[in-house]
Amino acid sequence: MAVNLIESQEAYSIQGVRLATASAGIRYQDRDDLVLIEIDERAQTAAVFTKNKFCAAPVTLSKKNLREAAPRYLVINAGNANAGTGQLGMDAALTSTQLICEEMKVAANQVLPFSTGVIGEVLDTDKIKHQLPMLVDNLSEQNWLQAAKAIMTTDTVSKAYSEKITIANRDIYITGISKGSGMIQPNMATMLAFIATDIEISKQSLQNLLQESVDQSFNAITVDSDTSTNDACVLIATGKSGLNYDSVSSADKKLFIEALGSLMKQLAQAIVRDGEGATKFVSVNVKSVANIELAKKVAYSVANSPLVKTALSASDPNWGRIMAAVGKCDETELNLSKASLFINGVEVMSQGEISASYTEAMGKQAMSNSEIDIVIELNAGSSQHTVWTTDLTHEYVSINADYRS
Amino acid sequence: MAVNLIESQEAYSIQGVRLATASAGIRYQDRDDLVLIEIDERAQTAAVFTKNKFCAAPVTLSKKNLREAAPRYLVINAGNANAGTGQLGMDAALTSTQLICEEMKVAANQVLPFSTGVIGEVLDTDKIKHQLPMLVDNLSEQNWLQAAKAIMTTDTVSKAYSEKITIANRDIYITGISKGSGMIQPNMATMLAFIATDIEISKQSLQNLLQESVDQSFNAITVDSDTSTNDACVLIATGKSGLNYDSVSSADKKLFIEALGSLMKQLAQAIVRDGEGATKFVSVNVKSVANIELAKKVAYSVANSPLVKTALSASDPNWGRIMAAVGKCDETELNLSKASLFINGVEVMSQGEISASYTEAMGKQAMSNSEIDIVIELNAGSSQHTVWTTDLTHEYVSINADYRS
Repeated sequence: MAVNLIESQEAYSIQGVRLATASAGIRYQDRDDLVLIEIDERAQTAAVFTKNKFCAAPVTLSKKNLREAAPRYLVINAGNANAGTGQLGMDAALTSTQLICEEMKVAANQVLPFSTGVIGEVLDTDKIKHQLPMLVDNLSEQNWLQAAKAIMTTDTVSKAYSEKITIANRDIYITGISKGSGMIQPNMATMLAFIATDIEISKQSLQNLLQESVDQSFNAITVDSDTSTNDACVLIATGKSGLNYDSVSSADKKLFIEALGSLMKQLAQAIVRDGEGATKFVSVNVKSVANIELAKKVAYSVANSPLVKTALSASDPNWGRIMAAVGKCDETELNLSKASLFINGVEVMSQGEISASYTEAMGKQAMSNSEIDIVIELNAGSSQHTVWTTDLTHEYVSINADYRS
Repeated sequence: MAVNLIESQEAYSIQGVRLATASAGIRYQDRDDLVLIEIDERAQTAAVFTKNKFCAAPVTLSKKNLREAAPRYLVINAGNANAGTGQLGMDAALTSTQLICEEMKVAANQVLPFSTGVIGEVLDTDKIKHQLPMLVDNLSEQNWLQAAKAIMTTDTVSKAYSEKITIANRDIYITGISKGSGMIQPNMATMLAFIATDIEISKQSLQNLLQESVDQSFNAITVDSDTSTNDACVLIATGKSGLNYDSVSSADKKLFIEALGSLMKQLAQAIVRDGEGATKFVSVNVKSVANIELAKKVAYSVANSPLVKTALSASDPNWGRIMAAVGKCDETELNLSKASLFINGVEVMSQGEISASYTEAMGKQAMSNSEIDIVIELNAGSSQHTVWTTDLTHEYVSINADYRS
């Protein structure tokens, strides 16, 4: 029951990127759960990964391989995270890359493995091996939507978006897919997301662009404050358009940055809209703050407060819980005497006091929406930060109490 | 549905402390919701308060009054927190102290007000005024259990405990009451707790004792990571036993410290056992860590993880979520390569890998208990910290979605 989220019906192909999916039966039956992505040999690839110290074997291996070589293949499975699996898990990740490098005649470190799903079980690579010939036969530039479906775990809607812009009379395409629904509070990385464009760009510029866009998209969402062991976001630039990013004007660069940023925000927000058990899509914007760190801390404190999230699920304008969540940030710079609070445009507090104009009826009306904008203005500086989140519902508890059973 | 928590049937009187309760109809009907506590004029009183920056008017006023004068009366109401109420709330808190100072012929700043309940509504002091004559008539040293009941909000079991020790052939009594069930992650303070002893002690020694005991009790619990706007813990020493703490031997001091510590731990753990919707009482002990700050950070990260808490509610030995919650603490000193994990004595991980002896059946068996001990050993130092918490259930969501309706 995703919040105002419709499954994408189309996505642009990206020249130089081919995809294939298969049903390997790793955990799920009767659906695809395995993806192979082939990247043109002249492409550049950048990635960011989870900072969770208990990160999964495929994360460790992908980071290493990406440092050593230009990736030619990504292999992604859903249903098993291959995390917390020690040396056996690392062996399995290595095996999955070796299977592909032998079949495709590339070096083993040109293959990056990604896994998502249950933690603590070693990945059975025989299941990948059996599907490999079919995957290779089916590689096609048309398969983005199928790939978006195949990487889902507790997601209820697949997530694929595209952008098309024109720079110097050339059409540039960007397409991305993501998955994620729970264990969502990315830390300098994301859930699984794979994005490709046909622009030409240096590896360094690509990595910089990715990091900046991630900070404004995947690093600004939370469902349940839990950072995954397997988060990764990959950005591929094939160069097939013939247009070189590094040589266009600043204005044209900005066009591309905005299109990429918009796409990544869509992918990130889709994860929140499909958050486990979500019935509300909530934006928490903390404004006029002394510095960005404080703005982030306050925004996440509100967005992760179980009491705020349960009030949201009940459409209860219990604004005291919002302000209590602000106030629990034990920072010396935090001063609430000039604070204002707005819920969907309704002024609830002003100058640290309940607004004269505020009525409970106005609050109820504002909270009844499925899209909630919470704005907290501290009137104590010029920094701001926005975090997107969901409410906390019975369904969240059910999903996570039942996930392994 | 509290976890292995039985309502206390008796509590020792403390000479020099009289209590009375009344039904003022502040929010609840057909139950007491107002408490007056009278403190002997020669007593010493210490207190710690919430560090929430959005703290309630009675917290602000009690802190001020306690700095200025020796408290003679505490007035406590349940059902309305008088928080987020601005100047009107402060006026109400002041009025409640003035009502009592006029009736009892003490200075206004010798009265400390405490409120707990819904945030954002101004306290109606007329309701206190009407009950005041009856409260005064009913003051008695016998009323601890009634007071424990009258301060409850979403609590399902009242919390009152006593200790008796013998020092230098004299009996010393300590009795305390507490309330709390949700919005529980005290920060250098507690829920509402009122503790009294008949030992004689200097104000400075009393404040030191309180702070140390709070750090090992109320500051080591969390239900939902939310720090209340109204937390306060008050410790009164009437001196009526005639025994002076400051002049006894170190060994005798230790006896008293241990008794006080034990009592406060009981009061704090009772709050967790009565945590909103709780079906498990969970201890998270993080051991062999480089420093205490890291031990605390890891312990709270596990104790507050929604994914760990939902797995606990389902008795699912989903240990990967525990280790993912450890790993998300983004601290450079954190190294999980030597980590061990035990659930109720069952070794799940050793040296960063799944234990050879571990089976899912053993995990299920361990997790089926209502009392869960999670021990995480990092084998990287000598610091440790324990946090007590609960699971996250449907009932928690229901309670907090319905609390104001």
